[in-house]
Amino acid sequence: MSTIRDDGVEFVVNAAGRRVPTLVNGAPARPFTGIGQAAPEGTKHGPPIRSAADYPDDGDKRVPDLKTALGRCGLRDGMTISTHHHLRNGDRVALAVLQAAAELGARDLMWLPSASFPCHEPVVDLMEQGVVHHIEGSMNGPLGAYCSHGHMRGLGVLRSHGGRWQAIQDGEVHIDIAVIAAPTADPFGNADGSHGPSACGSLGFALADSMYADHVIVVTDNLVAFPCIPWQIQGNHVDCVVEVDSIGDPKKIVSGTTVLTRSPDRLLIAEYVARFVRDAGIMKDGFSFQAGAGGIALAFVGYIRQMMIDAGVKARFVRGGSSSYLVDLLNEGLTDYILDGQTFDLAGVQSIGEDPRHVATSPFTSYNYHGKGNFASMVDAVVLGATEVDVEFNANVVTHSDGMLLHGIGGWQNCLFSGCTILALPSFRDRIPVIVDEVTTLTGPGELVDVVVTERGIAVNPRRQDLLAALEGSDLPIRPIEEIKTEVERLVGGAPTRPSLGDEAVAVIKWVDGTVIDTVWRVPETSESA
Amino acid sequence: MSTIRDDGVEFVVNAAGRRVPTLVNGAPARPFTGIGQAAPEGTKHGPPIRSAADYPDDGDKRVPDLKTALGRCGLRDGMTISTHHHLRNGDRVALAVLQAAAELGARDLMWLPSASFPCHEPVVDLMEQGVVHHIEGSMNGPLGAYCSHGHMRGLGVLRSHGGRWQAIQDGEVHIDIAVIAAPTADPFGNADGSHGPSACGSLGFALADSMYADHVIVVTDNLVAFPCIPWQIQGNHVDCVVEVDSIGDPKKIVSGTTVLTRSPDRLLIAEYVARFVRDAGIMKDGFSFQAGAGGIALAFVGYIRQMMIDAGVKARFVRGGSSSYLVDLLNEGLTDYILDGQTFDLAGVQSIGEDPRHVATSPFTSYNYHGKGNFASMVDAVVLGATEVDVEFNANVVTHSDGMLLHGIGGWQNCLFSGCTILALPSFRDRIPVIVDEVTTLTGPGELVDVVVTERGIAVNPRRQDLLAALEGSDLPIRPIEEIKTEVERLVGGAPTRPSLGDEAVAVIKWVDGTVIDTVWRVPETSESA
Repeated sequence: MSTIRDDGVEFVVNAAGRRVPTLVNGAPARPFTGIGQAAPEGTKHGPPIRSAADYPDDGDKRVPDLKTALGRCGLRDGMTISTHHHLRNGDRVALAVLQAAAELGARDLMWLPSASFPCHEPVVDLMEQGVVHHIEGSMNGPLGAYCSHGHMRGLGVLRSHGGRWQAIQDGEVHIDIAVIAAPTADPFGNADGSHGPSACGSLGFALADSMYADHVIVVTDNLVAFPCIPWQIQGNHVDCVVEVDSIGDPKKIVSGTTVLTRSPDRLLIAEYVARFVRDAGIMKDGFSFQAGAGGIALAFVGYIRQMMIDAGVKARFVRGGSSSYLVDLLNEGLTDYILDGQTFDLAGVQSIGEDPRHVATSPFTSYNYHGKGNFASMVDAVVLGATEVDVEFNANVVTHSDGMLLHGIGGWQNCLFSGCTILALPSFRDRIPVIVDEVTTLTGPGELVDVVVTERGIAVNPRRQDLLAALEGSDLPIRPIEEIKTEVERLVGGAPTRPSLGDEAVAVIKWVDGTVIDTVWRVPETSESA
Repeated sequence: MSTIRDDGVEFVVNAAGRRVPTLVNGAPARPFTGIGQAAPEGTKHGPPIRSAADYPDDGDKRVPDLKTALGRCGLRDGMTISTHHHLRNGDRVALAVLQAAAELGARDLMWLPSASFPCHEPVVDLMEQGVVHHIEGSMNGPLGAYCSHGHMRGLGVLRSHGGRWQAIQDGEVHIDIAVIAAPTADPFGNADGSHGPSACGSLGFALADSMYADHVIVVTDNLVAFPCIPWQIQGNHVDCVVEVDSIGDPKKIVSGTTVLTRSPDRLLIAEYVARFVRDAGIMKDGFSFQAGAGGIALAFVGYIRQMMIDAGVKARFVRGGSSSYLVDLLNEGLTDYILDGQTFDLAGVQSIGEDPRHVATSPFTSYNYHGKGNFASMVDAVVLGATEVDVEFNANVVTHSDGMLLHGIGGWQNCLFSGCTILALPSFRDRIPVIVDEVTTLTGPGELVDVVVTERGIAVNPRRQDLLAALEGSDLPIRPIEEIKTEVERLVGGAPTRPSLGDEAVAVIKWVDGTVIDTVWRVPETSESA
């Protein structure tokens, strides 16, 4: 079943029953065909072969400023410029680069951030001016609204962290110029995130960019003599090094995202999750788990920590993003290693900079589905959030129930391959039920979601009879997902109103294998914002 | 000027005046065109895209034995199998793999070792049996003799460590199956050389193989639970893991190659080199040097160490292969870092395993000429050996004056790009002068060789008037190279007899950019060996 719109873009219904375009920003796009069903073809992208004869013998690749660097890298209209998000809402580099490109007169650029933050709101102006054509990456806040309302000239493309690596590696996205904000770097371009006044921990999200882009610019506010040790980014990939006064605001780099929840409901959810992991027999010597930096996830770490101590159990490894909560586990001998994708607080930054058991990973090792396996499927349990989940356990993490883009995918899709994927959710937010008949935007297929934990009970995916059997006799409130849904709807006065969305695609959601799993449709502007 | 032989292979005279074939083992080969003159074209090699769907979710890639692994990797006649040489003369894996392939009936394989050692002599039998077609890699001892006498069915191709990376990266050599002997590994294939009963330090020479081969097999005698930390080889590149009783003989892995010379002449050479580095103004705070594990190089480190202490000078980094001599510099605070390509003794292995200032490098970071620069040109002074050097400072490191292949190139060609390249040589060996009119096999062009240090005096390349000026007033015996040559010839009874070589090419020497810098010609067998 396919439909062809007036603009010639054909839409088909994919294996998840979602209508998706087969052409995205001018390039053919494969519809989602089911988990593990889309066998890749061809070979990895090979960037141009360079010669050391064209780089300085003394290894000094410094140029005076961003404009000079962009010029050296052959900036032209229509190019793709990539950045990474380890500096989070404190980042000063991505915007500076795009503005420098604007001053050089560049137009129709594609911006490929590994994630965007509220600090990047001025990119809206650059899109209005025609400097930036569109964004492929997470969009939230003002950028999410701009895209959701259909103002972006191209389709937004949202990818998981692993999907971004996959797309770059496979040549689905071609980066002309990668810009790497580096808390420490040397004149050759070796760079790292674990030290310096703007230290942010790992630089793993910039690694694919450094390896596969045609040109690479390192921007740093902490230049050291060669060699910069350690070097997560290798200077042998780097064209130019630019020194600036500041790459970001350290206070916002390691920001307040890592605040333990105080909500009694959310604490209860966290405790349920920990008890579930324990009672299902997952918490045993040598086990592993991943929990991010959300309030519930942090509280979960607190509960599981105590249960590990009580039971005399030690993990082999834990995964973050890291925070003081995971660092404590390491220092208390409750885990052998932290395998860290990004670093969320100063305790994490300090630990990754000093402790060889706290290891920086990259989306290649952790998440890339087009590798010979990855770490995500080896994690015994992962605790994730979602904006919506439906009765088939399908989940949404990118839009809210009003259809507006609000979150990036992050590593969320990749983590679904864990041995036990647990969505830890309040059963409603702002009186809007979280368990729905059908998610607004499908981000992860239900067959990969094993457990939904709410303050009103725990729903186990019927596909996981093994978990249900393991929990027999447990005093945890295991309930059918439909029952929890009904209870919440009764409480808040019915199922949520489905948003009235247009037929105009504004973004697509990629699955981990590069196929299109869903479409984000235009949200009409309300009168006050119109 | 070109000649075409009866077998259709065309020979041309390259920019170094050497006659080289334009076809090597069936593939076109570019003749050397001068240093930095051969601009690369095209893109890096992209190996096939894989899917995590085809690898076990639990990350356990173990298979029972090498034959099973080779079968999984689709072993077929004519394939290229690569190995690395970090286990040196103690290696048990390379031969075991080729013999397993033989038992599976494979024929006409190309073996691509990063270097071969006397322990690999039985590969001669495999070539006689037709299992191995030819070798691209260093050949010495029995393998060198087999090739030199023209018994190999294909041309030997000798590359520097950097040239091997370049060839693999650029797709000039396509590896079907890479086999990595790993002193430590986990079931996912993460692997490292710094720990375990067969610890060898860095695994850098296997890194390109792991990244660019179609299939990768990790062989280990020290399997640890995931994750193997650190992981110089990433399991995400690995297809199969094979456990064996022993990957090598530890006594021969960290072997007696690192023995300080006791010869008074060679100690004098080492002292001259150190005094040269000091008096030429190279030895100053923040400087760097590279010295390998030969007897003269080790003695040089001893002399320069004392001079650094006396002058209160500290190096920023030193390069090895590492040994206790470099480790002492690190521990004494005489250098900030060791950037280590391979590890030659137990002190080196222990240091790289424990000290974050002792950093494992790879041929990519250190030597690859087809990157955006590399470390070699940033080293202030390098101390190298050679078998012959001519009056134009051209040098030979692969054959002796009888024309027989006797050494691999190692990092030698790559190191020539150092700020000051010093060949430290006895002026004669076995009464054969080392300074000659024309080297038997050109391995490095004279324009990159700055200084030749012998026990009879120091010759500075006239291109380096800056060095001569810096040394004005020095009491070092600076002499024209011709003068030293004449003196030696008088002493030993004349210039060496040029070998009588056939017109049959048996091997080619690649330059760092993949061009052919010289040809190795067949050495007729003497009556006793015929």
